[in-house]
Amino acid sequence: MKESTLARLQQLMTVREEAEALSQGEARGFVPLADWLDEGSTLTLLLDVPAVEPGTLEMQEDGGVLTVAGERASLPPEAGRLLLSERRAGRFSRTLAFPEAVVPGSGEASLQAGVLRVQFRKQHPTIDATYRELDDQDLQGETP
Amino acid sequence: MKESTLARLQQLMTVREEAEALSQGEARGFVPLADWLDEGSTLTLLLDVPAVEPGTLEMQEDGGVLTVAGERASLPPEAGRLLLSERRAGRFSRTLAFPEAVVPGSGEASLQAGVLRVQFRKQHPTIDATYRELDDQDLQGETP
Repeated sequence: MKESTLARLQQLMTVREEAEALSQGEARGFVPLADWLDEGSTLTLLLDVPAVEPGTLEMQEDGGVLTVAGERASLPPEAGRLLLSERRAGRFSRTLAFPEAVVPGSGEASLQAGVLRVQFRKQHPTIDATYRELDDQDLQGETP
Repeated sequence: MKESTLARLQQLMTVREEAEALSQGEARGFVPLADWLDEGSTLTLLLDVPAVEPGTLEMQEDGGVLTVAGERASLPPEAGRLLLSERRAGRFSRTLAFPEAVVPGSGEASLQAGVLRVQFRKQHPTIDATYRELDDQDLQGETP
């Protein structure tokens, strides 16, 4: 899938999720930002999920998309009075398109410094290509 | 300071920082979201800083404002190819207004699950008021 197509598809899915949230009368909540990384034989998702409790994290694969849900703890009432409140609490859910086909159920997750990292095995690993393209000079050398 | 005033002041400072970043030709980078919490005798700042390396975090108090700076690690070139890239890396800096006067140098910071928590001692602790306002009935009782 081309990168621009993936980004566009991601935008459309996000717009759809926003529209659904609005139609349900929910305020816009926490949206974890994502990176997809192609590491040859693995595909890695990095998701910023600060303050998310590990026990609340859920992942679900459904064909070409992955849904990650979880919860950011609300401050308890005895915590004090909020004077500025930019950090959204509560449940969140984000659906991301797999940029390439992965082996179903191969995801391995870890959580560190507020970042969720999930590694998937690719269906079609990229061959580690160390050769370089032939250029004019190479061709001249081979045809004396 | 009134909450709405604080939020407005915060907005103006953020706009100024954005304008400065633009005038320096920088792309908009990572902006950590913040909560200020009044806990009676302490004022607590919560800042979402996922993937920020603890050793890069710096804080500076300057009168009524606090500047927090740090760095989110860029992915090393050998990490692979980015297919989707929403997470901003590199240095960031955010300036926040103290919603109330604090004791200079009293900040105590901790970092957990990608959240920076800094507790400051307030100059004027809120007295734990458990009494209730006198109402008409009380006054009638005292003046027979």
